[in-house]
Amino acid sequence: MRIGELSKATDVPVPTIKYYLREGLLPAGELSSPNQASYGDTHVRRLRLIRALVELAGVPVATVKEILESLDADTEPLHEQIGRAHRALTPTRRLSATEEARDAATAQVTKLIHDRGWTVEPSAPALATLIDTVAAFRALGQENLIAHLDAYADSVERFTRFEIDAVTANPTRDQLAESVVIGTILGETLIASLRLLAQESISADRWKNR
Amino acid sequence: MRIGELSKATDVPVPTIKYYLREGLLPAGELSSPNQASYGDTHVRRLRLIRALVELAGVPVATVKEILESLDADTEPLHEQIGRAHRALTPTRRLSATEEARDAATAQVTKLIHDRGWTVEPSAPALATLIDTVAAFRALGQENLIAHLDAYADSVERFTRFEIDAVTANPTRDQLAESVVIGTILGETLIASLRLLAQESISADRWKNR
Repeated sequence: MRIGELSKATDVPVPTIKYYLREGLLPAGELSSPNQASYGDTHVRRLRLIRALVELAGVPVATVKEILESLDADTEPLHEQIGRAHRALTPTRRLSATEEARDAATAQVTKLIHDRGWTVEPSAPALATLIDTVAAFRALGQENLIAHLDAYADSVERFTRFEIDAVTANPTRDQLAESVVIGTILGETLIASLRLLAQESISADRWKNR
Repeated sequence: MRIGELSKATDVPVPTIKYYLREGLLPAGELSSPNQASYGDTHVRRLRLIRALVELAGVPVATVKEILESLDADTEPLHEQIGRAHRALTPTRRLSATEEARDAATAQVTKLIHDRGWTVEPSAPALATLIDTVAAFRALGQENLIAHLDAYADSVERFTRFEIDAVTANPTRDQLAESVVIGTILGETLIASLRLLAQESISADRWKNR
């Protein structure tokens, strides 16, 4: 199909498609004449993935590019490929906390990972983010909110197993890698919105008369 | 204490404190002389809360103001106050999906909420976000990732009960409201980073040899 049809099929404006082509997010179409390119189903899929990352998950275009390059690197072992995409998706926000709060947080998180038997690279960005977050809870005087960190981890592990089962059901390596990216990013929004709804429902019951 | 000491106690630069004062995020200090104001513990706490929202959670300053105003509105019933803060914290991202995907998502989410017996306002922004997200999974051909939506909801409900228990343990209404805001926002980062670590650990085991 031509670029105009690709635009219709995906609901992405032609100038945006051209921008993605220039930035190397979308592979070039096949030249059918010197100034006419033809696009296929892989372009439709790839465009939908880009839009999901950019629009729904708010991933910056440079990070999207990094993720897509990782997806396309067939030469890497799958778990490394997934690890790379994963790292690109991890938010790295830092909050200044006292040394004391950070030390206590590091100890708590290290113990948690050990107790659960998780295999985690010490350089994983999510590890730094988790420690920062626990330190922030402490620095803000909210120790009781993280007293049951293990209970959180237990629930999270529960649905992570479902997610990985669902993703593993994909027949091809490409589909699997794409599912990981979509699942990681959209799954975060899914969980966050379910949590807000559960909070609204449970708290309305409890606090109505306070 | 003076503004310089407030800056030291909270690790927030003086110009930033002045900006928050001008924007009405931080209440004015008590005037100890015509051009000297004095600040207390409430300012230290409030500043830490603002920093957590802005730095760690990436909440825009205008939204922070809205949340703080809601926290300070003592005249509202507590659950309404919490609901308002909640809504200000809900991300509203929209993704274009086909009408078909959106209808299927609406039906799936409506059934979920009914089956779980959740009380949810039809206007809750998290509801729209959840429907959009489920529709996006469908539009991207990832139906199997949301086939077990109820299992997700079950795990999420589990830790939401812990969170609400922890928050309810706060003795004063002000502390309770502050905990809700911190717990809602930092809890999201906490859960997201736990999930990434669990994914890394579980998937490394499963996919090492694929």
